[in-house]
Amino acid sequence: MSKATKRKILKTLDRAEEADTLSKRFDMLITTLILLNVAAVIIETVDSIHDQYSLYFHYFEVFSVVVFSIEYVIRLWACTVLEKYKHPVFGRIKYMFSASAIIDLLAILPFYLPFVLNHSDGRIVRILRLARLVRIFKLGRYSQALTLISDVIRKRREELIVSLTLLIIMLIFASTLMYYIEYEPDKPGFQSIPETMWWGVATLTTVGYGDVYPVTALGKLLGAAIAIMGVGLFALPAGIVAAGFESELRNRNKKNKGQDE
Amino acid sequence: MSKATKRKILKTLDRAEEADTLSKRFDMLITTLILLNVAAVIIETVDSIHDQYSLYFHYFEVFSVVVFSIEYVIRLWACTVLEKYKHPVFGRIKYMFSASAIIDLLAILPFYLPFVLNHSDGRIVRILRLARLVRIFKLGRYSQALTLISDVIRKRREELIVSLTLLIIMLIFASTLMYYIEYEPDKPGFQSIPETMWWGVATLTTVGYGDVYPVTALGKLLGAAIAIMGVGLFALPAGIVAAGFESELRNRNKKNKGQDE
Amino acid sequence: MSKATKRKILKTLDRAEEADTLSKRFDMLITTLILLNVAAVIIETVDSIHDQYSLYFHYFEVFSVVVFSIEYVIRLWACTVLEKYKHPVFGRIKYMFSASAIIDLLAILPFYLPFVLNHSDGRIVRILRLARLVRIFKLGRYSQALTLISDVIRKRREELIVSLTLLIIMLIFASTLMYYIEYEPDKPGFQSIPETMWWGVATLTTVGYGDVYPVTALGKLLGAAIAIMGVGLFALPAGIVAAGFESELRNRNKKNKGQDE
Amino acid sequence: MSKATKRKILKTLDRAEEADTLSKRFDMLITTLILLNVAAVIIETVDSIHDQYSLYFHYFEVFSVVVFSIEYVIRLWACTVLEKYKHPVFGRIKYMFSASAIIDLLAILPFYLPFVLNHSDGRIVRILRLARLVRIFKLGRYSQALTLISDVIRKRREELIVSLTLLIIMLIFASTLMYYIEYEPDKPGFQSIPETMWWGVATLTTVGYGDVYPVTALGKLLGAAIAIMGVGLFALPAGIVAAGFESELRNRNKKNKGQDE
Repeated sequence: MSKATKRKILKTLDRAEEADTLSKRFDMLITTLILLNVAAVIIETVDSIHDQYSLYFHYFEVFSVVVFSIEYVIRLWACTVLEKYKHPVFGRIKYMFSASAIIDLLAILPFYLPFVLNHSDGRIVRILRLARLVRIFKLGRYSQALTLISDVIRKRREELIVSLTLLIIMLIFASTLMYYIEYEPDKPGFQSIPETMWWGVATLTTVGYGDVYPVTALGKLLGAAIAIMGVGLFALPAGIVAAGFESELRNRNKKNKGQDE
Repeated sequence: MSKATKRKILKTLDRAEEADTLSKRFDMLITTLILLNVAAVIIETVDSIHDQYSLYFHYFEVFSVVVFSIEYVIRLWACTVLEKYKHPVFGRIKYMFSASAIIDLLAILPFYLPFVLNHSDGRIVRILRLARLVRIFKLGRYSQALTLISDVIRKRREELIVSLTLLIIMLIFASTLMYYIEYEPDKPGFQSIPETMWWGVATLTTVGYGDVYPVTALGKLLGAAIAIMGVGLFALPAGIVAAGFESELRNRNKKNKGQDE
Repeated sequence: MSKATKRKILKTLDRAEEADTLSKRFDMLITTLILLNVAAVIIETVDSIHDQYSLYFHYFEVFSVVVFSIEYVIRLWACTVLEKYKHPVFGRIKYMFSASAIIDLLAILPFYLPFVLNHSDGRIVRILRLARLVRIFKLGRYSQALTLISDVIRKRREELIVSLTLLIIMLIFASTLMYYIEYEPDKPGFQSIPETMWWGVATLTTVGYGDVYPVTALGKLLGAAIAIMGVGLFALPAGIVAAGFESELRNRNKKNKGQDE
Repeated sequence: MSKATKRKILKTLDRAEEADTLSKRFDMLITTLILLNVAAVIIETVDSIHDQYSLYFHYFEVFSVVVFSIEYVIRLWACTVLEKYKHPVFGRIKYMFSASAIIDLLAILPFYLPFVLNHSDGRIVRILRLARLVRIFKLGRYSQALTLISDVIRKRREELIVSLTLLIIMLIFASTLMYYIEYEPDKPGFQSIPETMWWGVATLTTVGYGDVYPVTALGKLLGAAIAIMGVGLFALPAGIVAAGFESELRNRNKKNKGQDE
């Protein structure tokens, strides 16, 4: 088949450009299929639904894997049209180790593995069933959201590491002090520093489940001080991500406008 | 009646301009009536109050519906003065399907429907009673707040969709992992992924009711990691709305000043 | 006594200018006395401490009231030196109704009232005891913090009203829907819309005590949606106050630098 | 030994410059040792792990203290090469009271103290064991994060003090009012104002453990109002720290780029 055909196919598979109606429709089909797959993985875990419709879930799974497998094979076959993967053998092997190809493979593997592995182990069966959720990352090709957040994290990496370091130091100190104050034999929640850290995270993120909290006067005083101070520190990564997100979106909008003109 | 009269009436009904004292007083009357209606819907649900004053609530309801019905009919009759709804028949039909006319209709419908429907069904009676709350949207004509937020959401639509997408992906992954780790037959809260999502939302929004939380060491470790990372993502929409709100208010203030000069 | 003396006394009582050492020392004394008073009101409510040291608390109260009364009388006597309160009789009456004079009066009144009122009613005695806390506002003369926040709220009044309106509409709708879904006779927490609002506030502010939460599947779905959307709205006033606070502080710093040069 | 050698040693001990490979490796070694020490202090508190590996923990502690002691002695001996600590005796004494030298001393003291003190008191033994956590501050020499946050707090000191003052006043008023409304003999959580403050902190930081919350209608009304208003105030320090953090990081990045060019 000619290179032009391959190129056409790859273009149709990937995210559609403005004018390409065929590719747009295909995008919508594959996106819908991925979302249905995610929904299936989630809903299937409800026992009552699973028991009643397990056959339909199975049919849908087989159908999805067939489609995704065909997509994978086509991409592998057509990738040689790209300069990077030009070589008919090594180019394809190189392509197989690209991030998106690995995701495509992981998306179908949970279906094929049980034919190879001994799948009498219930734990492995469950892992494989949930591993199908990796299909959500196939959306990365079509969705702005997933690429955006990874860009933001990459660009603000340094700030995020600094603030996460502070956050962990704060957590260690808060938990150590609280452990020292609240520890009593047989009092659950403060039996060791790692155990006290569960209280620390719940408090500093302000989740506050209420399963553990200080009960001594000194513990409450310290807990209050930690809550007041820590809330600021734990809001740092949120603020950094939000700021990066805003500026990234502004940049993209500018670029898009630049292209339109 | 002359067009001038119709125009005068419409002006009086709508939000007052600076100098128009009559219209201003009318605005205050209708706003007060709407707020009293909202208060009535809310307070009426308290059994002890309802039992004692049900007759007064009924009188007030009849009075309100009469006023709102008259307002609706006047608006429908006078709308032809506007260019858009010029035609005496089709213009009025077109007006009836405008957003504010639909709200006006929905505001009085719950009163008239029981005369048409068989209202022996307690569920429908309750829906109709609460549906009266739609009257709060009649404030949209007079209140800046309601129009402001819809403007902000419209303008920041794209950012909000992106961040909500991220948020839902985060929620799905967090819940799937936690379900896998914490699932045990007969342990409530983690029986299926949708059920685990209730924990996920409570944790990632930092509400943390404390009705479900991980109890295994691995679950707590994962829960802590999710809480720390997720808090940032879930603060995104809040940040976007806040930023849009600020810039929108600034724009409006500028415009107002521009008009004053 | 000469006008110069009066002026000197008023200056010493009020917030010290940079060079005025006497006034500075006096500020510190009165600030310390106010803070000790606040601490006394708080600590006195601990029964074990109150029982043991009630006499000391009483002596301290008498001493404080004497000082504050003298301060009040001196200010009233010296105020005529100011242009606004020039008239010996009406000027002083006018001064008595100024905000800071009212605070000064309220600060000492709880001590004198029991001599006038019949104070056998325990409820009134308790109110009077706690009313002494109003003394904290006497700090307003010396502390930047208290004047700052009132400035911020005044300047951002409009935005705050808009966002509080949105917040209350959100709360009403969330609570009405949840009440409709979760209501069941004898199920506490969702017996009426006002009662459901307690859940609404706890959820939308993300406090989440965990005393009430939805238990039906539909209620949890709605609760999750409300939590995700509402968190943004409820963060609005916080964002507005924070932004106003920042810009206000920047302005003040600029002004101070301008004065120094 | 020559001054050049001393200088070389100090350079190797301190944070590495770009090109200095030896110093970089040494930094990594000492950083790893510090992190392992912190991990040891934390993990050691888990009884099951402590019981099984107590000997290994002891060996590791001895090894760490030897390394840190040698480091301390070398630094003390070499510090005279710096202009500030030039004098062979007084310079070294002066160095001993520098912040980083005190941290270095505190890091090893918990090991040596029991040889001096009577360590039969279990409480002191536990304090000394946890005091080893001070070793985390030794990271300050190598980590940007720790110096960054202290810079931010120093520069925004004024704003932080103002907002903390507001926050404490808010807390005092909220707790006093709530105490007055909810107090009843034998009702835990609202027995005194200091006790009610525990509720106040949990609510205003939105942690909301759920161990105490108002139960009367009036108390819930007040609690809701406090939660809505207070959330804004308690987000202030977080916002200030986040803004300071962002601008500080931007400054540093600029400086670094300036140096590179």
